[in-house]
Amino acid sequence: MKVRIDVTLKPGILDPQGEAVRNALTTFGFTGIRSVRIGKLIEIELAESEPGEARRIVTDMCEQLLANAVIEDFAIRAD
Amino acid sequence: MKVRIDVTLKPGILDPQGEAVRNALTTFGFTGIRSVRIGKLIEIELAESEPGEARRIVTDMCEQLLANAVIEDFAIRAD
Repeated sequence: MKVRIDVTLKPGILDPQGEAVRNALTTFGFTGIRSVRIGKLIEIELAESEPGEARRIVTDMCEQLLANAVIEDFAIRAD
Repeated sequence: MKVRIDVTLKPGILDPQGEAVRNALTTFGFTGIRSVRIGKLIEIELAESEPGEARRIVTDMCEQLLANAVIEDFAIRAD
C-alpha cells in the first residue's frame, strides 16, 4: 500500500526557502500571503497491505531516518 | 486560510533522491519497500478565507511558479 508522509519544520524554526518563495510570489503580483513554509512529501509504496501495520513501519522509518526530530514534525497519511 | 500543496514528480520521471532514501532505509534494515518518491509540501497561509477562491489563487501560483509542469504534478488541499 502507498503511505504519504508530510515532513514539516516545527513552528518557530526559520524557513529561508519559504521566505524566498513568498518574496517570489509577491514579485509575481500575488497579494494577501501571510506565510509560506516548505516541507517534504515522501511517498512510500510498501508490500505491507494492512494500514495499521504500514503506519507502524513508517513511523519507525521517520523516527530513525526520514525526519529530524529536533527541527521537524511528521504526519503520516495511510489510506 | 491555510492551503497545502503537494508537488510530486510525474510518473516515469527518475527520482534519484527517492532511490537514495530507499537504499538508506534498506541499510537500516527495513524490508518490503517497493518504491520511494520525494516531493515538496508547500503550506501557504492566505488572507483569503473562501476555500474556492483560495484554491483558484493557489492554482495560479502553482502554474506560474511553484510547480514545473513539464516534470511535476500538483494537488491542492484547502480545508
